[in-house]
Amino acid sequence: MSVKEKYDRLHKIGKEIRLLVSFGYFLEWDQETFMPKGAIEFRSEQIELISSITHREKTSERFKEALEALIDLNSGKPHYEDLDDEQKANLREWRESYLHETKLPNDFVKTFAKTASKATNAWAKAKNNDTFETFAPHLQELVHLCRKKADFIGFKEHPYDAFLSIYEPGVTTQTLKDLFATLKPFLSELLKTVSRKQTVDDRFLRGNFSQQSQLEFDKHLLEIMHLDPQHSRLDLSEHPFCLGLHPHDVRLTTHTVCSNFMHSISAVMHEGGHAIYELNLPVEQYGAPLGEFASYGMHESQSRWWETMIGLSRPFWEFTYPKLQSTFPNPLDKVNLETFYQAINRCRPSCIRIFSDEISYVLHIILRFEIELAFLEGKLEVNDLPQVWNQKMQESLGITPQDDKEGCLQDIHWAAGLFGYFPTYALGNLYAAQLYQVFIQTFPDHQDRIRQGNLTFIKDFLKEKIHRFGKQYPPLELLERATSSSLSPEPYMNYLKNKFQ
Amino acid sequence: MSVKEKYDRLHKIGKEIRLLVSFGYFLEWDQETFMPKGAIEFRSEQIELISSITHREKTSERFKEALEALIDLNSGKPHYEDLDDEQKANLREWRESYLHETKLPNDFVKTFAKTASKATNAWAKAKNNDTFETFAPHLQELVHLCRKKADFIGFKEHPYDAFLSIYEPGVTTQTLKDLFATLKPFLSELLKTVSRKQTVDDRFLRGNFSQQSQLEFDKHLLEIMHLDPQHSRLDLSEHPFCLGLHPHDVRLTTHTVCSNFMHSISAVMHEGGHAIYELNLPVEQYGAPLGEFASYGMHESQSRWWETMIGLSRPFWEFTYPKLQSTFPNPLDKVNLETFYQAINRCRPSCIRIFSDEISYVLHIILRFEIELAFLEGKLEVNDLPQVWNQKMQESLGITPQDDKEGCLQDIHWAAGLFGYFPTYALGNLYAAQLYQVFIQTFPDHQDRIRQGNLTFIKDFLKEKIHRFGKQYPPLELLERATSSSLSPEPYMNYLKNKFQ
Repeated sequence: MSVKEKYDRLHKIGKEIRLLVSFGYFLEWDQETFMPKGAIEFRSEQIELISSITHREKTSERFKEALEALIDLNSGKPHYEDLDDEQKANLREWRESYLHETKLPNDFVKTFAKTASKATNAWAKAKNNDTFETFAPHLQELVHLCRKKADFIGFKEHPYDAFLSIYEPGVTTQTLKDLFATLKPFLSELLKTVSRKQTVDDRFLRGNFSQQSQLEFDKHLLEIMHLDPQHSRLDLSEHPFCLGLHPHDVRLTTHTVCSNFMHSISAVMHEGGHAIYELNLPVEQYGAPLGEFASYGMHESQSRWWETMIGLSRPFWEFTYPKLQSTFPNPLDKVNLETFYQAINRCRPSCIRIFSDEISYVLHIILRFEIELAFLEGKLEVNDLPQVWNQKMQESLGITPQDDKEGCLQDIHWAAGLFGYFPTYALGNLYAAQLYQVFIQTFPDHQDRIRQGNLTFIKDFLKEKIHRFGKQYPPLELLERATSSSLSPEPYMNYLKNKFQ
Repeated sequence: MSVKEKYDRLHKIGKEIRLLVSFGYFLEWDQETFMPKGAIEFRSEQIELISSITHREKTSERFKEALEALIDLNSGKPHYEDLDDEQKANLREWRESYLHETKLPNDFVKTFAKTASKATNAWAKAKNNDTFETFAPHLQELVHLCRKKADFIGFKEHPYDAFLSIYEPGVTTQTLKDLFATLKPFLSELLKTVSRKQTVDDRFLRGNFSQQSQLEFDKHLLEIMHLDPQHSRLDLSEHPFCLGLHPHDVRLTTHTVCSNFMHSISAVMHEGGHAIYELNLPVEQYGAPLGEFASYGMHESQSRWWETMIGLSRPFWEFTYPKLQSTFPNPLDKVNLETFYQAINRCRPSCIRIFSDEISYVLHIILRFEIELAFLEGKLEVNDLPQVWNQKMQESLGITPQDDKEGCLQDIHWAAGLFGYFPTYALGNLYAAQLYQVFIQTFPDHQDRIRQGNLTFIKDFLKEKIHRFGKQYPPLELLERATSSSLSPEPYMNYLKNKFQ
């Protein structure tokens, strides 16, 4: 078998695995959009089966053999020098992922999934009834399993590094501690100053806005972003999300809140950003790591870019506001652009992460990061969580949740066993700001262009810098290549200072 | 391992296979409803993978071993006498299906699928452009492969029996020849008489009817039929269909034709009939044959029952017509119920099977049956098909298609390699009529009940007689148990005579 044949064989298996993963996404999409409600038990059975087949393929002898024919699994050294850089990068990532998958014993994976599934149910009920105590034993069990998981995965310095190696390879607990040590006091201080200074009356944003009008405007936004309807579609779900089944089949959703049209607008811009990344991944690499997004943080940088850097910017609304006014003449006919711009950028501490402004957002993440560390280090008891949460909220945002519903029960992540995931949200903001710095240097006329409704140059920029590489480089290296500087909190801090001071 | 454990192990594998089959259905449903158009190539890859995994599981050593632990694969004799009748029936059917799947060599299955896929594409183009000659070589190849397929499957008297054994086990070519020998002259004669006698002016059925109003009425029909929205949903597709993923997840579609609202009504009643069957299958048998519909003919009996026996009946419209009138006040405000009833039941020869009336319908099937036989027997050359088709149309319906688009190119079935499938449509009508005879005897007040909008007793009757048994009995035995008489053309002939003379 020639090297090419060996490589093609491996890519073929990789493609089968990716197709199986896409079935999982597809089931998820359907469950949140169109599935008849009474089919939920059947749906769990489908998901369980597809997960088990996927795991089997990812850890199969067939895959291992095909991989070993091209790369040494122990040393990570490719057997053939005449492979090109992209192929070598694929082999590196395929090996990483194989080693990762085989680290977790099958039984552990099942136990973890089952516990998380029960915990998610328990969390939903506890959140509804504001009864943290009914969720506590589940969280206890998950913390225990997460410690075990970290041991299986392995780490050098901190068990938390094990999780970061999944979501954001190359980023360590220490990296985050250093970043957050700079960001936390800066953001707390900035939030205080800015929220004191802002005086705009933003009550006109609340009202009663028809779902149909909101959706109409959402579709308009997708058109402005040039989201190809041949390869994507927008639907409604309770929580917005975006799933890339394939660069030719990307499903995104939004939600509408009748009292506030900005929720749907933010959701579409955010998920649209995710969608553009997925649509721009190189299709010929489908099934190989270079056909996949670089990391969760990098994905989030794309969604936050469109949601905040573009979607909360003045030039964007200079172009878009007339259409929004004609969609919601009452009350917007009486609101000028500047007032609207000030209103959507009003910063004020909020207990809820997903409703928070650009300055508060990362503070919410830092709080969660500190708590996750404390759990893993055994320095925090589950029963003390509500109290510690509220105390930290008071410290960093100066407010205290009314109840656990808007406190430690607000997010699904811990119930789903996703320890170590939150920091990717913060990193997304940092990556985006770093890219933005390069962007405004590269396009000194960017405001004019955007003001005229031209967004394709932005898409081209992001594709050129990020999308087309897939997983060719680890996220921090990709960032450095794209911005000629290593990860730093400065661009983000500068971006906020420039915008809000 | 106890007998129970052995049985449970087998059922577990059966369930996995059924879940895989449901993925295939799910992909099909999405492709026809919501999939972004540009994802079609990716979709083919998904379908190919899931088909191959499904076939692998259906023919796996694991399945064979689990089966052999309970039943002798050669003789079909169960190893244990203390299994109940349902379990024995499941073993019988599981064995049948295993033997069937393993009869076809893997390579042949792939060749067949690929040829059919190409032929389907070629057919769509040929139909569009009315160029039979571009489709002919594909049909030639499929006829050749179908002969081979019959040999692999095996048959006693006629190669056509091999196909019937898949779609309608127990029915033979001779059965059909005998039935059709009675039906053909009867139907031809009746059609002539009735179409001469009917004088109602039905032009009011044509017009310009909004899609929204049509869909609104469609949903109303589903409510009348008590289709549980917790376990089913209705969407739009080009060709209506119904797919049962699980008794808790049934997806049906309709289409709307703006010039004629009756198309959508027929489609919803027809697919709704299929859906009710799927929804009523015993859920605890999911993954076992007793959780599956008895046969394609039996499925069709359920759809035709709702579409024609109910949906074209006078008492049904006595209840439903006011709502239809209020949906389409123009023109229906000026049309009384009797005129409407006469119009929707007007019989006149049509070249198109799917638009044909209750009398013509089976004549269309007989024509296709005769042609399929001639192909398999080598008595008909592919190139002669258009001429023979038109000649037969003239003989039995007294009309000649304008072109092959409304002639021998109208149906997709042959392009898809589905030889032997058409007769199930005819059998569906016969089964339905036979059930109807029992129904009207059992419920002498059925007309009153329907007139009052009560349809649940009909659903209960069908569930009791047919749905709850799944595949426990072969279709002809099920029919006999349900109606206390064996398959006969008489009830169908009587039904038509009573209705139309």
